[in-house]
Amino acid sequence: MNISSKIVEDAVKSFSSLPGVGRKTALRLVLHLLNDKYDLADEMSLGLSKLKEVRFCKQCHNISDNDVCEICTSQARNRQTVCVVESIRDVIAIEETGYFSGLYHVLGGIISPLNGIGPENLNIRSLLERIERQGVEELIMAISPTIDGDTTIYYLTRMIPSHVKVSTIARGVAFGGELEYADEFTLGRSIASRVPYTVQNNQL
Amino acid sequence: MNISSKIVEDAVKSFSSLPGVGRKTALRLVLHLLNDKYDLADEMSLGLSKLKEVRFCKQCHNISDNDVCEICTSQARNRQTVCVVESIRDVIAIEETGYFSGLYHVLGGIISPLNGIGPENLNIRSLLERIERQGVEELIMAISPTIDGDTTIYYLTRMIPSHVKVSTIARGVAFGGELEYADEFTLGRSIASRVPYTVQNNQL
Repeated sequence: MNISSKIVEDAVKSFSSLPGVGRKTALRLVLHLLNDKYDLADEMSLGLSKLKEVRFCKQCHNISDNDVCEICTSQARNRQTVCVVESIRDVIAIEETGYFSGLYHVLGGIISPLNGIGPENLNIRSLLERIERQGVEELIMAISPTIDGDTTIYYLTRMIPSHVKVSTIARGVAFGGELEYADEFTLGRSIASRVPYTVQNNQL
Repeated sequence: MNISSKIVEDAVKSFSSLPGVGRKTALRLVLHLLNDKYDLADEMSLGLSKLKEVRFCKQCHNISDNDVCEICTSQARNRQTVCVVESIRDVIAIEETGYFSGLYHVLGGIISPLNGIGPENLNIRSLLERIERQGVEELIMAISPTIDGDTTIYYLTRMIPSHVKVSTIARGVAFGGELEYADEFTLGRSIASRVPYTVQNNQL
């Protein structure tokens, strides 16, 4: 792409290094910033330069502005229940729901032999230490229902002391989803693992 | 979205101000930058802070690092032919093709009464001055084939001195496209405005 400004060319190059952003999209974004009257480019520049100040919580490995994150320091949360997730995005997604009031533990990935990720690459040791120190009573495995996800859950359950209750998030047909559009495997498994009818479990 | 870091939250907010970028995409991009080992965040920050140095060419209104852009100053280009386009992106798209060796004139939009854009909002006066000063012999109207585009071309042709040759880019079925997928209007018009067969006009 022949851009008649080196400055714009450089900005386009760095934008197109972002995942899912091609040259054309990058150019569209940079030209938008160039015509923007509200100094969005300056705001973004400042925001990006501050990113290196972001730390990871020493306890749960979530992003944080301090050594320990807001969730871990909150007195309002239940410290006996820890939700084990793959990534920071999962923490944010679960927080969005407003359904969980315990703490989190971010593994930083899942065991995936094909991608060369083994247990030693994940935050597992710190999870075991927390269970000891914090007196954790329940671990909720909120990990993607894939083969790698299931492998990770299986591995973890073998490492965790037997007095700790382990649960996984419910799997089945999505609320509000139509049966005919559910994939065969999900539909089949949701029949096999049917649960007794109660109003609470089935309301939208 | 409840993000446990104010710095990340701010960065997500500014990313999601970009066109076509929602909160979820913004979060994905910022978390990517956070985990990036190659200092992409710093590179982007620097690039964005420099954007305010970008100028617009005094002659053709294209982006430029100097008062007059590279294309306008190039000795290799034909100064008698000027291609009139709507936006900077069109200049880049046409330069990509390698088919044009004249100069450009960026209108900065097209006449669009519904969007409140009239001739006075476009770079038309400077185009007329250039035609005088530069001895322009041909104007190529490379403007989108829409109602607003056609209105703009019609308006311009009425302002331009009669000795200047005016042409529009060819319209018809796209090269490599299949007839059955062309829209009715394009197909109908491409039959009505058929051209004598020559090898040059029809080769892919």
